[in-house]
Amino acid sequence: MERSKALELVKEQLTEKRYVHTLGVTETAVNLAKAFGADVKKAELAAIFHDYAKFRPKEEMKQILMDEQEDGRLLQFHHELWHAPAGAILVRAEAGITDKEVLSAIRWHTTGRPKMTLLEKIIYLADYIEPGRSFPGVDDVRKLAEQNLNVAVLAAVKNSISFLMSKKQPVFPVTLETYNDLIQNGDDV
Amino acid sequence: MERSKALELVKEQLTEKRYVHTLGVTETAVNLAKAFGADVKKAELAAIFHDYAKFRPKEEMKQILMDEQEDGRLLQFHHELWHAPAGAILVRAEAGITDKEVLSAIRWHTTGRPKMTLLEKIIYLADYIEPGRSFPGVDDVRKLAEQNLNVAVLAAVKNSISFLMSKKQPVFPVTLETYNDLIQNGDDV
Repeated sequence: MERSKALELVKEQLTEKRYVHTLGVTETAVNLAKAFGADVKKAELAAIFHDYAKFRPKEEMKQILMDEQEDGRLLQFHHELWHAPAGAILVRAEAGITDKEVLSAIRWHTTGRPKMTLLEKIIYLADYIEPGRSFPGVDDVRKLAEQNLNVAVLAAVKNSISFLMSKKQPVFPVTLETYNDLIQNGDDV
Repeated sequence: MERSKALELVKEQLTEKRYVHTLGVTETAVNLAKAFGADVKKAELAAIFHDYAKFRPKEEMKQILMDEQEDGRLLQFHHELWHAPAGAILVRAEAGITDKEVLSAIRWHTTGRPKMTLLEKIIYLADYIEPGRSFPGVDDVRKLAEQNLNVAVLAAVKNSISFLMSKKQPVFPVTLETYNDLIQNGDDV
């Protein structure tokens, strides 16, 4: 799918603010893909569509996750986690994106997962460091992302867990599994 | 079992340093039990025996965990986690302690677990704040422990996760489950 067509489809689904965020993620993902040798077109497409389901009604997302037999633990956690897996399903059904690498990068962009693919890492990280993001530690992660993808992803995962704990918010188990996987199997972190 | 007999059995198993730690945990656990209405004798017994297996050979602990079909994930993680579940089994077999509450407090003293019992919380916390402990944040947890058990346990769990992440050490999934349980179901945290 052409970039302009993809952006058109996504723009209908998002608020103006979230659309600007999406453009930031797209720019960042393309740069990361070039830097770390990923497929630039796939990175662009996954970034454009990563928040496609962000504003869908909770009940619709819940039904999709149940129909598709997604990880049942998701429904026990905050609905903020639902738009990524629901998004991957909707992007396929409504926008006709069938590339599995692109869909899995959308699927895992919020929680991460153990053994992330290169594209999954890029979308996860781009979502975290795109230019519109502003929170403690983000500049450190941006600097790390200029040098080592795994180190930057690990820092983002650690910051996310620490942030959630500081707010007494639940941490989805798969995010901890991502952390454990990166430190145990990432040979360059 | 009498305190003196229990201490005698444990002393044989531990280094001098670890025995002093055990005495600290015992004093702290007794005080916490009095403060929060737990069974003081059970708290004392669990505290005395909590590190019973600390210096057993790794291979022996591993075999016990396999024989007893303990959580298979333990063997994928650091052997530091093995002495608590192996200890509960050995304390029963070798010291003849059969009280399930005491054994489960020993069982879960390192990782915590969701829906911890009062006694489990007391032993977990006593192990964390006994007078011999000295690390960043321990005094804050000691102060919290004077007022609210769940808040203190939550602080200890959060600190433990943060400490492990700062050292790039793996975090056992049950410890994260303990955190999630305390913030989601602890109505006073």
